[in-house]
Amino acid sequence: MRQDIILSGAGGQGLILAGAILAEAAGVVEGKEVVQTQAYGIQARGGASQSTVIVSDSRIKFPEVLEPDILLCLSQEAYNRYMPNLKQRGLLIIDQDLVNAENVRPDIRVVALPFTAEAERINRRIVANVMALGTLAVLTGVVKPESLAQALPSRLPERNWPIAQEALAVGVKLGKGVLSA
Amino acid sequence: MRQDIILSGAGGQGLILAGAILAEAAGVVEGKEVVQTQAYGIQARGGASQSTVIVSDSRIKFPEVLEPDILLCLSQEAYNRYMPNLKQRGLLIIDQDLVNAENVRPDIRVVALPFTAEAERINRRIVANVMALGTLAVLTGVVKPESLAQALPSRLPERNWPIAQEALAVGVKLGKGVLSA
Repeated sequence: MRQDIILSGAGGQGLILAGAILAEAAGVVEGKEVVQTQAYGIQARGGASQSTVIVSDSRIKFPEVLEPDILLCLSQEAYNRYMPNLKQRGLLIIDQDLVNAENVRPDIRVVALPFTAEAERINRRIVANVMALGTLAVLTGVVKPESLAQALPSRLPERNWPIAQEALAVGVKLGKGVLSA
Repeated sequence: MRQDIILSGAGGQGLILAGAILAEAAGVVEGKEVVQTQAYGIQARGGASQSTVIVSDSRIKFPEVLEPDILLCLSQEAYNRYMPNLKQRGLLIIDQDLVNAENVRPDIRVVALPFTAEAERINRRIVANVMALGTLAVLTGVVKPESLAQALPSRLPERNWPIAQEALAVGVKLGKGVLSA
């Protein structure tokens, strides 16, 4: 099984970092096949920023993501740009306060959660990315939340470890809330 | 103009980090078009580790690296794996103490330097990656050494900034030595 993921948002929201953490968790901690890509330049300018991660049980022959199975959007612009390519019956995860997802295709499963507001509540808006990863892990099974927790230290300065682990735990809880709803 | 680069070596030599630094320097600091990719899993196991970086003045339409213009190898296994794909008249940069590049194709330009030995001399074997980036920058012009220096802090813990900047300076000097030879 192969899952194609796009993590998107505005510059400064840490989506490239989120992609690196997800890739490390799936590829290094869990030993899955992973290809992770980020673009800088035309694609990245104008506010939108994205990282793609492919996670697979077998060798990844085609390393590009054309139609993601899973799309995370933390900004309206990223939503406008990437949403049209989301696969049939794909999963869309958005920040409910930053993205207006009206009139979304009826085949899409939409999960809207207050990542950034929750991140502000624990005092660091910047960890909304890690929180969203926790939710994505719970909802998709693409990686275990414990693997994300294990991957965090290698990608973050030590002073940010506690807040990132807290954000991850909140994200996992938000995801479990969706599952049990 | 587009330049395709593969940074390769063994796990633990920091090639994925080197790719991230190069991408940040070219894409964020210099505002060029950049696509950076790393793979974990079958491709990454068995000792070999690699990161690919595409740097271009215009939009990157095909984001895969099949035949690099520039190949950095810090291990024999990486050399054995990636060397056959190096483009005609491509540039091969190797660690002279870790890679045996006998019988290399006559069209290839080979630059063999003691990155790891020099990194050990300044007390941190792990900065051979940053040193090699400095040499690569001087020899190829793909990015300015100053842009690498500017990109380092966002990718390394603060305690490693001085040693990384020193390694970068040594790499630049090694590169200039090659140019003037």
